[in-house]
Amino acid sequence: MLVIGERINGMYKDVGKAIKERDKKVIQDLAKKQVASGASMLDVNVGPAAKDAQEAMKWLVETIQEVVDAGLCLDSTKPAVIEEGLKVVKNKAMVNSSTADKEKLDIFVPMAKQYKARLIGLTLGKSGVPRDRAQRSEYAAAILTSCVEAGFNLEELYIDPIVLPVNVAQPQSLEALEALREFRFLYNPPPKTVVGLSNVSQGTENRSLINRTFLIMAQAQGLDAAIVDPMDKELMDAMITAELLLNKNIYCDSYLDAYKKK
Amino acid sequence: MLVIGERINGMYKDVGKAIKERDKKVIQDLAKKQVASGASMLDVNVGPAAKDAQEAMKWLVETIQEVVDAGLCLDSTKPAVIEEGLKVVKNKAMVNSSTADKEKLDIFVPMAKQYKARLIGLTLGKSGVPRDRAQRSEYAAAILTSCVEAGFNLEELYIDPIVLPVNVAQPQSLEALEALREFRFLYNPPPKTVVGLSNVSQGTENRSLINRTFLIMAQAQGLDAAIVDPMDKELMDAMITAELLLNKNIYCDSYLDAYKKK
Repeated sequence: MLVIGERINGMYKDVGKAIKERDKKVIQDLAKKQVASGASMLDVNVGPAAKDAQEAMKWLVETIQEVVDAGLCLDSTKPAVIEEGLKVVKNKAMVNSSTADKEKLDIFVPMAKQYKARLIGLTLGKSGVPRDRAQRSEYAAAILTSCVEAGFNLEELYIDPIVLPVNVAQPQSLEALEALREFRFLYNPPPKTVVGLSNVSQGTENRSLINRTFLIMAQAQGLDAAIVDPMDKELMDAMITAELLLNKNIYCDSYLDAYKKK
Repeated sequence: MLVIGERINGMYKDVGKAIKERDKKVIQDLAKKQVASGASMLDVNVGPAAKDAQEAMKWLVETIQEVVDAGLCLDSTKPAVIEEGLKVVKNKAMVNSSTADKEKLDIFVPMAKQYKARLIGLTLGKSGVPRDRAQRSEYAAAILTSCVEAGFNLEELYIDPIVLPVNVAQPQSLEALEALREFRFLYNPPPKTVVGLSNVSQGTENRSLINRTFLIMAQAQGLDAAIVDPMDKELMDAMITAELLLNKNIYCDSYLDAYKKK
């Protein structure tokens, strides 16, 4: 499982404040802690409040790279903000994200290709969130087609079925899970998949329990990557145990520790 | 999810001793606790040590029925032991279990039909445990065929993909999980499924974590019933949360408590 740490996001109060004040310590602590907890990439999102979004992205990337070697997942709806990050990323980059809308794909697919970055393709159309698993597959096919046409390496593509809060869109959890499995039949080899996990538990009172339960179910359907809080130990233990049961890590009595030492 | 409590089994030291000494209190306490924790059926197994197995089964069933109304899942490899229990069960009974071997099916399917009991069909052949998901489906089809031929109500049939300890047969966990999904395509309506959960973690050092992770993954593949320890609160919370995400229970902030009050 490709674990992408979610915490460096301006939507979190501490991070939003640190970006505003250019306080490196808060960002660097979060970077180090997430990597120590098992993240191999870190999401980087300047948040909605950042007025100087491009400059803030560049500062975040450089600040993080002073302390960790993790790949960086540049998270914005604005192409210029993502590209500002791509210019300064030293290790692996990921473009987060394009929708399935052709106008967006025509911008982000060539951009990811140019910078040899991974790309997240959201199964979102112009009309918003997908209705059901079938519409998710439709959007996933559109993303795949754009990538094939652009000569983008499909090994670098991660399709996101769009996870919605279970407390406001309950039937959508199952639709997203089943979509993950359906995507496997869209192409050979099957496209990789990713979820932005924490959205499933937005506004609920059992966030960690709901998050890790959804994650395990998504792994059972073949999930390859997830944007999560790696500092949630119970989440990481559940994820590692699911990988064990899917025969992806070899069993030993101390398999939890063994995974963390990898 | 049909939760079947596993604890009244002579393989557990306390239960084995209580059966030997005909100590009602130990058995009745376990019956009441399991039902209070969310079990709607209780497994009843006299254990390998019981010399007077038929008499012990009758005593267990009568002892349990003095304190709870739960259905009883009569667990033995010996037809005569199960039938002794069936004769005295007042509420719903379940025959646990037949293998996919024709000689066994010819005994247990008519027996379950006669007593209007549910039936667990194990995907085990004469040669022992199934190799992979395909052999599990083969055995499942043999069980279904026998039931259809005997006029057994398929709503009462639960097929078990055979869960093996992850520490000695690691690839089998995924095979069992995928078999659960494949069974859904064997018949219309799809046959129900059950697992004996705790076997997956036999001999491991993280039993509860491995049990609940496997259970959630099995639920994601459509599992209908499980023989579990309902007194494992983390297991039950995980199970209830998985049902929520599969859209089987309606969300409310206190969905865990709401489920337990059902």
